[in-house]
Amino acid sequence: VATLLASHRDEIAARLGAPLVLAHVADIDLGRQRGVDLSGVRQSHDYRALVADPEVDIVIELVGGMGVARDIVLAAIEAGKGVVTANKALLARCGPELYAAAAKRGVEILFEASVAGTIPVLRALREGLCADRIESVHGIVNGTCNFILTEMEEYGETYAACLKRAQDLGFAELDPTFDVDGTDSAHKLCILMGLALGVRLDVSQVSVSGIERIEPVDLEYAQQFGLRIKLLAVGKRGPSGIEARVEPTMILRTSVLAGVSGAMNAVEVRGVASGPTLYCGAGAGALPTASAVVSDVMEMVRSRRAGIGIRVPPLGREALAEPELADAGSIESELYVRFSVADRPGVLAQIMMILAEHGISMASVLQPERHAAHSVPVVIMTHATLASSLREAVEQIRKLEHVHGTPQVLRIERDL
Amino acid sequence: VATLLASHRDEIAARLGAPLVLAHVADIDLGRQRGVDLSGVRQSHDYRALVADPEVDIVIELVGGMGVARDIVLAAIEAGKGVVTANKALLARCGPELYAAAAKRGVEILFEASVAGTIPVLRALREGLCADRIESVHGIVNGTCNFILTEMEEYGETYAACLKRAQDLGFAELDPTFDVDGTDSAHKLCILMGLALGVRLDVSQVSVSGIERIEPVDLEYAQQFGLRIKLLAVGKRGPSGIEARVEPTMILRTSVLAGVSGAMNAVEVRGVASGPTLYCGAGAGALPTASAVVSDVMEMVRSRRAGIGIRVPPLGREALAEPELADAGSIESELYVRFSVADRPGVLAQIMMILAEHGISMASVLQPERHAAHSVPVVIMTHATLASSLREAVEQIRKLEHVHGTPQVLRIERDL
Repeated sequence: VATLLASHRDEIAARLGAPLVLAHVADIDLGRQRGVDLSGVRQSHDYRALVADPEVDIVIELVGGMGVARDIVLAAIEAGKGVVTANKALLARCGPELYAAAAKRGVEILFEASVAGTIPVLRALREGLCADRIESVHGIVNGTCNFILTEMEEYGETYAACLKRAQDLGFAELDPTFDVDGTDSAHKLCILMGLALGVRLDVSQVSVSGIERIEPVDLEYAQQFGLRIKLLAVGKRGPSGIEARVEPTMILRTSVLAGVSGAMNAVEVRGVASGPTLYCGAGAGALPTASAVVSDVMEMVRSRRAGIGIRVPPLGREALAEPELADAGSIESELYVRFSVADRPGVLAQIMMILAEHGISMASVLQPERHAAHSVPVVIMTHATLASSLREAVEQIRKLEHVHGTPQVLRIERDL
Repeated sequence: VATLLASHRDEIAARLGAPLVLAHVADIDLGRQRGVDLSGVRQSHDYRALVADPEVDIVIELVGGMGVARDIVLAAIEAGKGVVTANKALLARCGPELYAAAAKRGVEILFEASVAGTIPVLRALREGLCADRIESVHGIVNGTCNFILTEMEEYGETYAACLKRAQDLGFAELDPTFDVDGTDSAHKLCILMGLALGVRLDVSQVSVSGIERIEPVDLEYAQQFGLRIKLLAVGKRGPSGIEARVEPTMILRTSVLAGVSGAMNAVEVRGVASGPTLYCGAGAGALPTASAVVSDVMEMVRSRRAGIGIRVPPLGREALAEPELADAGSIESELYVRFSVADRPGVLAQIMMILAEHGISMASVLQPERHAAHSVPVVIMTHATLASSLREAVEQIRKLEHVHGTPQVLRIERDL
């Protein structure tokens, strides 16, 4: 942010009609070289000095996490400052509390950089699509996972090997747990769904699974069927209520979302009037994130110079509703199911029988060429199937003598 | 717009904190059934009655064209009303005049629907990317052309056959001239470049060519080289100045833009900090366009309720600069060139000689299998070539005895 404010100073001043001055920086480690010239900028160890500084109109919280970050945001609101944050974990967990505090104090809180980095998708939902009723959001909102899946498909390598490469290249953190297990995407989905669907969704209400169990063989089968696996964050109004999930999903290779590769992010929004619109760009990185953060600051400056406290409510809606969640078992989808079975006659017939007994209709069944291996895969693509039926069938199939391990079950979404 | 205001009335009122009322409609033909209930709405034959109506705060101009539309917009501004328009031709030709009039009178003029229909890409440029310096825009902004090119590639059919189908399906007008010859895209490019690059570009400064001369064989060769042809509107800061062009362009099939098919529109924006971001959605259609129009009205209502006249200048910039245009001949690009030649020995050698004399380096040369035809194609893919060199070489080659007709020259852009 400091780099961008310096390099783009003249443009920003021209667009705002006034300079934007970095007045104060608070940092635990003021001694660390960060490659920016902070001469003339007040510096403090304690965020309270920054929040209390009368020269500071807008506080940018880029600490991350749930501890001091929450204190900073609340203290800034209390002091009547505008707040810009990129902290998706904080917003997913304490968003409604923070929005209410800001509304009560008459100040704005903006957070474009918290979802999909540089892409102005929150603004699109809050303003560009504000006239429409949104039906769904489908997002690739974790660059680490998208990078790993892209590499796995391109090179036919394992999850572990591609995670290692992502770490070496700086696309994954040393502890990548919250990225690869879907938690980070679930945080972003909560923020997106607040804006898109007007619901106050807790992260515990999102059904989450990560990419750790995806194997190269799954990507190969996807390809064979004209599909590609993406970690999708999906929020929608389904036939029986609000659906919210993060999971590896098979989508058509010809869809625009399937073409979003590497560390890029994308969000597809479907509105009743606007139809599908898609937003794509860098989901992370210092300068792309700074572009989103500073655009929020500039929006706030424009409002403040015009004497407005809150121009648009934080989520574009007057209030967030409690979501009426769909029962997970009642959701119907096409599914990809891969079992590992012993290479013996009759096993496939047993599986087919159990699926048929549960009313599950199959679009195709693949039992690839037999190797002299302990286990061979059986791959089944179903027609639209109730999640509860599949769950019961899989439970029964797992108990069969010659079926090994945990089957791989992935949803197929063909309408993107 | 009237349909959307009725069907989304409650959401809109909730988001604005006040109802949005359609107060007055002016139409030359008030008798025509338009499938909307206008009971309770004042109706006039004369726009002046609407503009003078004290109940009207915001005027929406959806007449189109350059005549009365300009009068309506200027009269509304003069009367101190906010103006929302979807009229790209008007904005491309009279935009700076209208923006200045609005600024002088202290009212807003918004026009999200004028470029790329429902997609909030103008808002992205004006607000989401306002902190950044934009280097280029690449747009597929004419749905008719994109539909025709998609169909030509998919079915191997001629331009004429696919234009006919587009007309039958309502994707092309009965007189499609301004769509297929690139004029419509050039209008939109002028608006995009004002916002993105801060330049006051006249439509006469855009180098324009349409899709009428594209043949199925060009799409086949593109495919063979991993490329796809799209009618691109391109505005950028090049090494020798501002470049502005609309032309059929070969881009990598793996790029996200190449995946934008049928009547969809998309714009890719490249910023110094934000990198590439892409916006995709419906470029036309009644409800998608209405979504953009009403979002502008809502933005204006929010500002007006807060007592603000102009929150953000129309183009997000304080003033538009005259563009320093690059000399067209000095632009270097990879090129696809297709000649039609008589099937005789030595013709290819002559062509190669002339290209070599002009310093043009070839990446590949294809002279497909000989048929017993009058003409056979010779296809050349060049390395980076100066436009002026190619122009001179092509002039010479056209004079060769056994070279027929006008060669096809298409630019190749690999970095999308």
